[in-house]
Amino acid sequence: MPIAPVRPRIEAIYHVRSDAPGIEARALAIAVEQSVEMPLAAVTDDFVRSRIVGHVEAVTEKARGLFEVRISLASETVGDDPGQLINMLFGNTSLHEDVVLHDVELPAELAGQFGGPRHGLAGLRERVGAGRRALTCSALKPQGLPPATLAHLAERFARGGIDFIKDDHGLADQAYSPFAARVDAIASALHRLALVGTTRYVPSLSGDLDRMRGQLSAAAAAGVDTVMIAPMIAGLANFHRLVREHPGIAFVAHPTMGGAARIAPALLLGKLFRCLGADAVIFPNHGGRFGYSPDICRAIASTALGQWHGLNACVPVPAGGMTTDRLREMLDFYGVDVMLLIGGALLEAGDRLAEATRSFVATVQAYRA
Amino acid sequence: MPIAPVRPRIEAIYHVRSDAPGIEARALAIAVEQSVEMPLAAVTDDFVRSRIVGHVEAVTEKARGLFEVRISLASETVGDDPGQLINMLFGNTSLHEDVVLHDVELPAELAGQFGGPRHGLAGLRERVGAGRRALTCSALKPQGLPPATLAHLAERFARGGIDFIKDDHGLADQAYSPFAARVDAIASALHRLALVGTTRYVPSLSGDLDRMRGQLSAAAAAGVDTVMIAPMIAGLANFHRLVREHPGIAFVAHPTMGGAARIAPALLLGKLFRCLGADAVIFPNHGGRFGYSPDICRAIASTALGQWHGLNACVPVPAGGMTTDRLREMLDFYGVDVMLLIGGALLEAGDRLAEATRSFVATVQAYRA
Repeated sequence: MPIAPVRPRIEAIYHVRSDAPGIEARALAIAVEQSVEMPLAAVTDDFVRSRIVGHVEAVTEKARGLFEVRISLASETVGDDPGQLINMLFGNTSLHEDVVLHDVELPAELAGQFGGPRHGLAGLRERVGAGRRALTCSALKPQGLPPATLAHLAERFARGGIDFIKDDHGLADQAYSPFAARVDAIASALHRLALVGTTRYVPSLSGDLDRMRGQLSAAAAAGVDTVMIAPMIAGLANFHRLVREHPGIAFVAHPTMGGAARIAPALLLGKLFRCLGADAVIFPNHGGRFGYSPDICRAIASTALGQWHGLNACVPVPAGGMTTDRLREMLDFYGVDVMLLIGGALLEAGDRLAEATRSFVATVQAYRA
Repeated sequence: MPIAPVRPRIEAIYHVRSDAPGIEARALAIAVEQSVEMPLAAVTDDFVRSRIVGHVEAVTEKARGLFEVRISLASETVGDDPGQLINMLFGNTSLHEDVVLHDVELPAELAGQFGGPRHGLAGLRERVGAGRRALTCSALKPQGLPPATLAHLAERFARGGIDFIKDDHGLADQAYSPFAARVDAIASALHRLALVGTTRYVPSLSGDLDRMRGQLSAAAAAGVDTVMIAPMIAGLANFHRLVREHPGIAFVAHPTMGGAARIAPALLLGKLFRCLGADAVIFPNHGGRFGYSPDICRAIASTALGQWHGLNACVPVPAGGMTTDRLREMLDFYGVDVMLLIGGALLEAGDRLAEATRSFVATVQAYRA
């Protein structure tokens, strides 16, 4: 078998809690755990010793008792599989309490192979006829409502001129609101409002890969071209497979189940989801129901949008208990390369939902950086 | 539409860090987050208010600043989708640092619908002709070795009389060791040793659902009837789909990407993986490379094995840096309803691998509780 050319290595960056005397051994243990997972003395193969074993490239003290550890891993161990990427980066080490996966530097070849967002910021703006302004989004909820009621909600959001209406991430394929019936009802309702035809309905995919494929077919048949998915529940490989199979569809990534494994939010949501094809990524904004700091939110947005191996920009979508009285502050914070998602606070308007939506939309459209 | 009969509710049990004055509000917030995810004042539908909204059933102080919160959720929100199950149990709440998903009580109907292990403890013992004794297992590694070298390792494990030989969970479908070539090489090697025909090779599945299906076909064609899978990377729904599609195959679940205790290990590995069909579950034993305590390990084993809605027992597989000098202690701790997995420590034997394996096997087979 011909020897394949050496490929550039992946560099994983961990934050490790340790005392100073112990950090070198701990760093080496992580490098072994995330590569060959066996005593190095028993690794006799030259290729494995020189290429496959993780290398500790650098250890830096960040604060007292907190170290940054950079470990390079062979790209060949990942191949083209996003599941194997996360397995190599953090699989067994996710079971250790003293480590956070802080960041990853991927070789350009690997990032380009995954390809990133197909549509991204420019594509999502184009879908709704928006220029260089922030996009608007709201959510259909609560789960438990039948399709007709959800469609009525969607109609009022659309009358208010909203850009995107997404399913709450709890809306799946339940007996009281089957996916296909829901998509048909909502798509038909929006279709009837041809005057506001730029509003896009974004249904939430759920279930195994085949069920999600079936949902995508039903959605496409109803004229839907943008969907939501929860990559950490779907499995990263299945998420990416759907992206590859449906180049015309834009994917909005939801962070649900993203927190249980201690991966830095900017890395997981901003970089990895983008790399695998998320066109937009929802995350908990600071000052809402979740504990992310302004710094974390800024890092997510800049990672999703920034120049990175030539990939398209992924739209940051701060959310999680946002209210219309924070719009100006959020726009000042994020600028216009953002999609603002306000769900519950609009639904509280009850009968005045369309008016509340219109006011939200007008504020965003009038904003000039 | 006829009203479906009311189904018994799921009960999720969270451990929440909070001060005493704040816990009631925090518990309610979790109940809302994990169900309707919007202000309750804006929920007007009677069915949603009475059935779909999460109910705080009990709040108990476990220790100073630590509370157990029991929240019931509607089974109808989950339907038959394992991905939606974990989404409802912990999705957004996984993003909150103050909460651990500690346990879940599933209605018998829901557990029965998922069905649990098809083969379990009895089936895995039968595969290798074992009576009521502990099973033995080792691992093929390091990744990076070509199929022929791995096959040679497998042959020596088999000569030592081991019950199961699993792939290291880093072995995927890499260019230097493609899945199909690896399975063929190893299955052929074991086939040639017909005298020890009770050794089972357990290859590791990776990639998206379709790639895993292809791997299962290749494995079955080579006579393999037991495989390993990483449910948290595959996605729970895809894992369960494979279980349903392949009733003759036994599945060993690997904990990679299971996170560090944000979901209690006994719940995730012992209960949920079992419920979705894991016949055996690997987990880090206490005193090895990972930080699980003896209590956690005991809880995982008893949850995997115990009486629960009539499901088959799932074999606990303590691992993660185990050595042969701990065999007696492990057998005393777990009893014989266990599979003992020793990987690296056997591989350190080098040329004496078959002998070291034989000694491991003999100790386990001679053990009487």
